[in-house]
Amino acid sequence: MTAPDPRLSINQATIKHADLRTALDVTRDAGIEAIGLWREPVQAVGLETAAAMLADSGLRFTTHCRGGFFTVPDGDARHASLDDNRVAIDETAALAAAGAAGSTAVLVLVAGGLPEGSRDIAGARERVRDAIGDLAPYAAEAGVTLAIEPLHPMFATDRCVVSTLGQALDIAADFDPQVVGAAVDTFHIFWDPDVLAQIARAGREGRIATYQVCDWKTPLPADVLLSRHYPGEGVIDLRTLTEAVVATGYDRDVEVEIFHADIWADDPAAVVRRTAETFGRSVSPFLAPADSRAAPSRPAPSRPAPSRPAPSRPA
Amino acid sequence: MTAPDPRLSINQATIKHADLRTALDVTRDAGIEAIGLWREPVQAVGLETAAAMLADSGLRFTTHCRGGFFTVPDGDARHASLDDNRVAIDETAALAAAGAAGSTAVLVLVAGGLPEGSRDIAGARERVRDAIGDLAPYAAEAGVTLAIEPLHPMFATDRCVVSTLGQALDIAADFDPQVVGAAVDTFHIFWDPDVLAQIARAGREGRIATYQVCDWKTPLPADVLLSRHYPGEGVIDLRTLTEAVVATGYDRDVEVEIFHADIWADDPAAVVRRTAETFGRSVSPFLAPADSRAAPSRPAPSRPAPSRPAPSRPA
Repeated sequence: MTAPDPRLSINQATIKHADLRTALDVTRDAGIEAIGLWREPVQAVGLETAAAMLADSGLRFTTHCRGGFFTVPDGDARHASLDDNRVAIDETAALAAAGAAGSTAVLVLVAGGLPEGSRDIAGARERVRDAIGDLAPYAAEAGVTLAIEPLHPMFATDRCVVSTLGQALDIAADFDPQVVGAAVDTFHIFWDPDVLAQIARAGREGRIATYQVCDWKTPLPADVLLSRHYPGEGVIDLRTLTEAVVATGYDRDVEVEIFHADIWADDPAAVVRRTAETFGRSVSPFLAPADSRAAPSRPAPSRPAPSRPAPSRPA
Repeated sequence: MTAPDPRLSINQATIKHADLRTALDVTRDAGIEAIGLWREPVQAVGLETAAAMLADSGLRFTTHCRGGFFTVPDGDARHASLDDNRVAIDETAALAAAGAAGSTAVLVLVAGGLPEGSRDIAGARERVRDAIGDLAPYAAEAGVTLAIEPLHPMFATDRCVVSTLGQALDIAADFDPQVVGAAVDTFHIFWDPDVLAQIARAGREGRIATYQVCDWKTPLPADVLLSRHYPGEGVIDLRTLTEAVVATGYDRDVEVEIFHADIWADDPAAVVRRTAETFGRSVSPFLAPADSRAAPSRPAPSRPAPSRPAPSRPA
């Protein structure tokens, strides 16, 4: 077995049932250099402990998942959501500072669906823009980039009213690209007839906060949320999409985030090894050659020296 | 119970297990004036008989479902598909000629998904354009409008690589609007952030070949193909979409096409009555007032007098 691609990052959702200790260990033990974390397992040990564990692991930190869910109308629920997003921003900054050099302070945002009883998808979309406007100054202060993630349109009403990369970029356009970008996830956007143009636009506008890969195939399982596959094991044209992302100059880590019942039931160590293998076959050949990814081209280290105020941003 | 909306058309798929005789009878007996047919039940009795039965029913004919499935590469399968589409065009013309005054000769096209083993969605999309180019002269000769139907992106790889109304209009743009238009179906396009602009564009370009309504809600059933609901029983903003269609000047019939296991298992007569009721509540209030739909504003009768060469087209 060859060494894992040095740009591969394991998104913790891929090994959903692993606690933070296990997730860090199996990722590092597989020779993988980076990880994206989820809030719940971080909170299960506490942020300070999680940051220390991450620092000990020597892994780069790539994204924190996830904030968002702010489509409810004004009121207590909305305030609670925005407050919780501020906590998520703080967590992101702390973890990015604890990760190894090359870590990025990116918080992935899943917008949320229609409020109960509502049919007003246009209104829900406006509230996403408003919420990001509320959070942007706080994120800017914390040195965190908010990554608006368009989700596949099959989730438009129950999970995420942001359905295309173009829509995410339209929302982001009101803000500094250092503060608000987009998550480019192959699973969610590969079907879009306009996807290549929008990836190019995202690059031009400095908005690719993270690139995530996994695969799609049919028939979909009974719970469509769990329909994500190892890269290369479905029908997404990962070559074309990856080349489009690379063509924008994106040179950072690439996450694999898979939701699948069988994969979640598997041994986490086996899952990360298989992720590395499938990524190596289906994505690595289309990333920039390794020599262009030598240390000098990486972003500056994100763990702040005492004189540096904030972890690195992706853009 | 009030009389059904005079613009309601029952798409035969809503009562999938009814044969043609039953479908015509329950539709007419419910006081509904129009029907869209599917090829299989028409072929089960033979085209000539089907046309005679339709003429006897006194119903308007609104669409024939369906052609398409022409994303396979060159070869026998592609030729067979195009030949079968020509048969479907002939069927459409014959049925439109047999339907009552105001019938329209519209063949709905579902493009097809990725060929087995392929990841080339861009190539499949090019083949759709090519196939329509092959069929357009035949359709023009027959007086039939081909309606490209964008399907929800969850069907992009296994059923229809045309995923947005904008994409359908881009394909149609190469052709005469009398010959190639689009099917505007709320279920498939409501999630699109650009949907209202694209409906307006479709109207401007004379491309709304048919307007179909049904509803969406979650959780999706295990087979996502069967996730369509009676209008008003889900979360689609039917008011806004219907008003957008009406604003283009669309004044023809509106089909309800529902795929749902429970509805298919129900008594067809009950289904059409319930369709009329739910349509009356959730769609009728947003169609043009009845007095603007008086006979003079309807399209000319489609059953050709001996001197007329072809049934009416929708545009």
